[in-house]
Amino acid sequence: MNTFGSTLRLTTFGESHGAAMGGILDGLPPGIGISLREVDSQMARRRPGYSGMTSQRREPDRVEFLSGLMGLDNGALVPLSDTTDKALTLGTPVGFIIRNTDRRSADYDALKDIYRPSHADFAWERRFDGIRDWRGGGRSSGRETVCRVAAGAIARQVLEQTGVSIRAVLTAVGTATDPALFAAEISRAAEENDSVGGIVECRIQGFPAGIGDPVFGKLQQRLAAAMLSIGAVKGFEYGDGFAIAAMRGSEAADRMRAENGRLKFSSNHSGGIQGGISNGEEIVFRVAFKPTPTVGWPLETVNRNLENVTLRASGRHDPCVALRALPVVEAMAALALLDAALGDGMKFAPSKR
Amino acid sequence: MNTFGSTLRLTTFGESHGAAMGGILDGLPPGIGISLREVDSQMARRRPGYSGMTSQRREPDRVEFLSGLMGLDNGALVPLSDTTDKALTLGTPVGFIIRNTDRRSADYDALKDIYRPSHADFAWERRFDGIRDWRGGGRSSGRETVCRVAAGAIARQVLEQTGVSIRAVLTAVGTATDPALFAAEISRAAEENDSVGGIVECRIQGFPAGIGDPVFGKLQQRLAAAMLSIGAVKGFEYGDGFAIAAMRGSEAADRMRAENGRLKFSSNHSGGIQGGISNGEEIVFRVAFKPTPTVGWPLETVNRNLENVTLRASGRHDPCVALRALPVVEAMAALALLDAALGDGMKFAPSKR
Amino acid sequence: MNTFGSTLRLTTFGESHGAAMGGILDGLPPGIGISLREVDSQMARRRPGYSGMTSQRREPDRVEFLSGLMGLDNGALVPLSDTTDKALTLGTPVGFIIRNTDRRSADYDALKDIYRPSHADFAWERRFDGIRDWRGGGRSSGRETVCRVAAGAIARQVLEQTGVSIRAVLTAVGTATDPALFAAEISRAAEENDSVGGIVECRIQGFPAGIGDPVFGKLQQRLAAAMLSIGAVKGFEYGDGFAIAAMRGSEAADRMRAENGRLKFSSNHSGGIQGGISNGEEIVFRVAFKPTPTVGWPLETVNRNLENVTLRASGRHDPCVALRALPVVEAMAALALLDAALGDGMKFAPSKR
Amino acid sequence: MNTFGSTLRLTTFGESHGAAMGGILDGLPPGIGISLREVDSQMARRRPGYSGMTSQRREPDRVEFLSGLMGLDNGALVPLSDTTDKALTLGTPVGFIIRNTDRRSADYDALKDIYRPSHADFAWERRFDGIRDWRGGGRSSGRETVCRVAAGAIARQVLEQTGVSIRAVLTAVGTATDPALFAAEISRAAEENDSVGGIVECRIQGFPAGIGDPVFGKLQQRLAAAMLSIGAVKGFEYGDGFAIAAMRGSEAADRMRAENGRLKFSSNHSGGIQGGISNGEEIVFRVAFKPTPTVGWPLETVNRNLENVTLRASGRHDPCVALRALPVVEAMAALALLDAALGDGMKFAPSKR
Repeated sequence: MNTFGSTLRLTTFGESHGAAMGGILDGLPPGIGISLREVDSQMARRRPGYSGMTSQRREPDRVEFLSGLMGLDNGALVPLSDTTDKALTLGTPVGFIIRNTDRRSADYDALKDIYRPSHADFAWERRFDGIRDWRGGGRSSGRETVCRVAAGAIARQVLEQTGVSIRAVLTAVGTATDPALFAAEISRAAEENDSVGGIVECRIQGFPAGIGDPVFGKLQQRLAAAMLSIGAVKGFEYGDGFAIAAMRGSEAADRMRAENGRLKFSSNHSGGIQGGISNGEEIVFRVAFKPTPTVGWPLETVNRNLENVTLRASGRHDPCVALRALPVVEAMAALALLDAALGDGMKFAPSKR
Repeated sequence: MNTFGSTLRLTTFGESHGAAMGGILDGLPPGIGISLREVDSQMARRRPGYSGMTSQRREPDRVEFLSGLMGLDNGALVPLSDTTDKALTLGTPVGFIIRNTDRRSADYDALKDIYRPSHADFAWERRFDGIRDWRGGGRSSGRETVCRVAAGAIARQVLEQTGVSIRAVLTAVGTATDPALFAAEISRAAEENDSVGGIVECRIQGFPAGIGDPVFGKLQQRLAAAMLSIGAVKGFEYGDGFAIAAMRGSEAADRMRAENGRLKFSSNHSGGIQGGISNGEEIVFRVAFKPTPTVGWPLETVNRNLENVTLRASGRHDPCVALRALPVVEAMAALALLDAALGDGMKFAPSKR
Repeated sequence: MNTFGSTLRLTTFGESHGAAMGGILDGLPPGIGISLREVDSQMARRRPGYSGMTSQRREPDRVEFLSGLMGLDNGALVPLSDTTDKALTLGTPVGFIIRNTDRRSADYDALKDIYRPSHADFAWERRFDGIRDWRGGGRSSGRETVCRVAAGAIARQVLEQTGVSIRAVLTAVGTATDPALFAAEISRAAEENDSVGGIVECRIQGFPAGIGDPVFGKLQQRLAAAMLSIGAVKGFEYGDGFAIAAMRGSEAADRMRAENGRLKFSSNHSGGIQGGISNGEEIVFRVAFKPTPTVGWPLETVNRNLENVTLRASGRHDPCVALRALPVVEAMAALALLDAALGDGMKFAPSKR
Repeated sequence: MNTFGSTLRLTTFGESHGAAMGGILDGLPPGIGISLREVDSQMARRRPGYSGMTSQRREPDRVEFLSGLMGLDNGALVPLSDTTDKALTLGTPVGFIIRNTDRRSADYDALKDIYRPSHADFAWERRFDGIRDWRGGGRSSGRETVCRVAAGAIARQVLEQTGVSIRAVLTAVGTATDPALFAAEISRAAEENDSVGGIVECRIQGFPAGIGDPVFGKLQQRLAAAMLSIGAVKGFEYGDGFAIAAMRGSEAADRMRAENGRLKFSSNHSGGIQGGISNGEEIVFRVAFKPTPTVGWPLETVNRNLENVTLRASGRHDPCVALRALPVVEAMAALALLDAALGDGMKFAPSKR
């Protein structure tokens, strides 16, 4: 199960320190214009080392598109080149790879037989009959999200052409909920060789009413699945979320009224989704990120021989994964929403060349 | 999209006031003993009118099994009869229906052209080209969950035979978090013709380590999708959930140690899932339910002609859907977990006859 | 795996002598008019005992629709009743059952432990850990096709409303290829307590160009899968089929020409599909049916204890299953083609009420 | 739809003259030893120019594995290198690419606006809103099969380790059915600037009984879908195939007998599959290949402006695609059979290191 989506399907591959990460995005409509520079921009947002507050692994993370796109030159299709910006979807699967150029695998030899606390290591070996690529977490590494951002950067451009915008922001970092304090909270954790969690809020504007299935393909279900597929995410809520549990029905109901022949909602407790289907209001959801469990402190754990050991991580780690996760949240939202829209027969007009 | 699951697939059908609800549960292993009385017990837990605190629609909700099961008589397969308790799975799809016996459709004529606030009505018409079965919510009714409970009652029995137990409880009702106060909170809301939300916590014990896929089939992703497919659910979190966002990594990391040759976890912030894979600890998640938006107050809304109207619901409604949802949460958890276990090749030994 | 299709999905259940056969057809567009009498007509064509030349099991095979359809009365939606003819799809899953009223299960007790030659019995027990409903073949019975005909009768009506017609005919029965001789060939086999095979040719007219996927969802691949899912089918070919292997490329190439601004094909060796995609020409395929292996002769075989036994079938059987299979071939073609059309975004306009 | 399989899924991408072909093989069990040299051998069999009798496009077609495999060095996992032969599956998706090194795209400029007879061109444009990569057929090129052979070369090795062998041979070329005459038939067609069709027979030995699903996942259905997904295939039959239509049931029934406590079949008209499930006998099927429609003769056709034109193909083409298709047929059979086996819970023991 390395595939996300039904009508628009992203299948990914890659171990953190293998030759490359990559994926196939299948199900795009033909004839949609895509800016490859915009893909680069999204990749840059996710990149470690992008700000001073993220892990120091430095990789150009250039996406190499191998199929499914051709360049546009005065309205004519031309082969892709290294400098192509404007491309057109062919409607065939978009295959792409991102080379792993920073592969200091030897850094990880000490971890070969150790189960890192709150990482996948132990459970992984139970799942895969003891076979595990230990280098940088292998397939369970957060590096896997490069493929999501690359594919999401295409999906969001398709959506944007119909007027949909997707934007995620941090609303909490550790115990701070005032954005002015976030940088300080992260710096303090980093100084103390520790990490902090955070909460990301994502808002989607312009998404049309009538998308989503009423029973097992609810729009919130697809968004929840998209978010919980991100490694460090521990919770998802939409609209009023957990807070609504404390409300009365009379308080939480979104009244409607007609104004100038148009239906208006008086409130948006529903977060833009009712009965599993978008209602045309802003879609709002929040996601809780845990602090990365790789910290600069010695932690008690065990190795594969079931011996007690103490692990002090020496490698690079993020003081706040939630910060780097913003483009990942947006990318997964774009993939989930475009998948739902295409599945429900929404049409995307070919771009003007 | 009326199907849930990959290896074990539940497909459901039915409008609230049509002839019947029903489903097909496909992918069960052959030879597993199932108590049909136990299915009845689970159905009774979900039934409206089960306690004084739920909606007054009264239906026997008897599940009629049409295929995929045969009775057991002294170890021999025999046809199912109305009084069969002990049945055996054939490994073929289990088809079942639940008749809608309480079909006072005329009650709903007044709602035919009205969009009820915070219900599916408006978004539904956008999705289905204006075609909507208005009677009791049609397919978007909470009645659809009878099929989930029926199928889940089979799935949980399969799991129980390997030592897995699933139990959901209310941890909050409205503003009350002390169970002693829940009944009062619900009664007060009912008296005031209003409704309250709630939070349900579900704990799964005995689930083996090594189930779940590391990228797009994470166990938490499957559970989140299962929960957000329930109509009134607004949020999902597992392990420490949203609270972990405020923690430090050093605090949230689940240390391990070896004791008498066995691996032990010192804490369970992870909620039994690490890297998307079960680690053998208790699986813990929480789900937020909204208060039902059908209340006994007049609410402003619009009709299909985009005229402003005031709606005062006269029908039956639940003062606290979270209460009735306990067996639904358990059923969906059972379906999601058994699906994951079967997909990862977990074997279920034929029952002794 | 009891599901056929991707966008339009038919899931079926039922053992031959259980309570009922049934299915769920999910993915229909909303607002399409369906004649339930026309469904009855298709069911009648498949029914055993329909002509003097098929098996004598007599069952009304009435399809009971439980959801997904409402009746139409002067353009208004009304509940379905037993006499409804004109119905409208809701866009929700159509659940249906067909009761097994002719359940003389005791007839089959002698077969409980015997593996009938060229039937599923032996392989079934290997697949399902020795668990098998022996009554009339259980789930492997040809009776399972009632569900396909019921669902196909809906799918074909949807297609017909866009001008698509589907028609299957026998082109060979045993060694006879002249239709005038078919009845005699079947009668002779029946008199000799034997059975004969046959070849069915299916032609689809009016199917639009541009449906089908170029690689793993080729239209011929979907049709082949549909046909080979029918129990007695041993082969599938489309266009010139096996005969094309003996041709030269210059002979088999379908030339094109423009006539009055329209593209015309000079021949149809391709059978209406090129590169996996319909080209607007007539779609033509042929299917080979084996003679039923249940004959009135004693056949050597073994029982579950691996003892040699001689089996003389006493029950009802078809002298030529290909004859009864005509509506099944048409139904599966309709399901496969409508699935492909919906998957490729073909729009079906709501019916005029 | 660029994915084949359910439990073992191959997703491919690539246009014939784009940067690369590639794919992801997802669902392999962990710990299985794979020889990468054996993959090379299979690729060599498919390669154009492999014999004097196939198209002259020359490409090394080296498969670059990017994930899902690690090398084995004295039983220890090590990174893959260019010279690795022995590798081990990790249980994670195997991503791979094959560069298109022979990209003489300009050769195809003349075909940009022409619909080649019996090729995908015309139908493609209807399907993809007029967007088509014209270079060498783009995604509809036979070159797409490199990905199938690469993935199939892994699948077949997994099967071989349980004693399964897969072998395809030509049984007819044009009008010749004597293998001694095949080379002459192909040469003659080539000299005359024409092409010939052919029939391929595939036999699978050692495949265990009990694999396949009885209704919509029949083993023959999966094989038929696999074969009809190959571009030039026009027909599929298994066991006695089309010939069985002319037989009597008494003749075609495969009797069984017990010998020394083992069940034996007296014949194999069924071709190793009964009721959709393997019965342990040899699986036998045949596939009809059309002659390639690209011939050295001028053919009448039309262009995009619907003008009549005459096309004389100058490029490379295969005089007999059936010959080159042998490894493709074997690869697709391996993928279909391993998918079915894994889906039915067949276990593949980790290889000894």
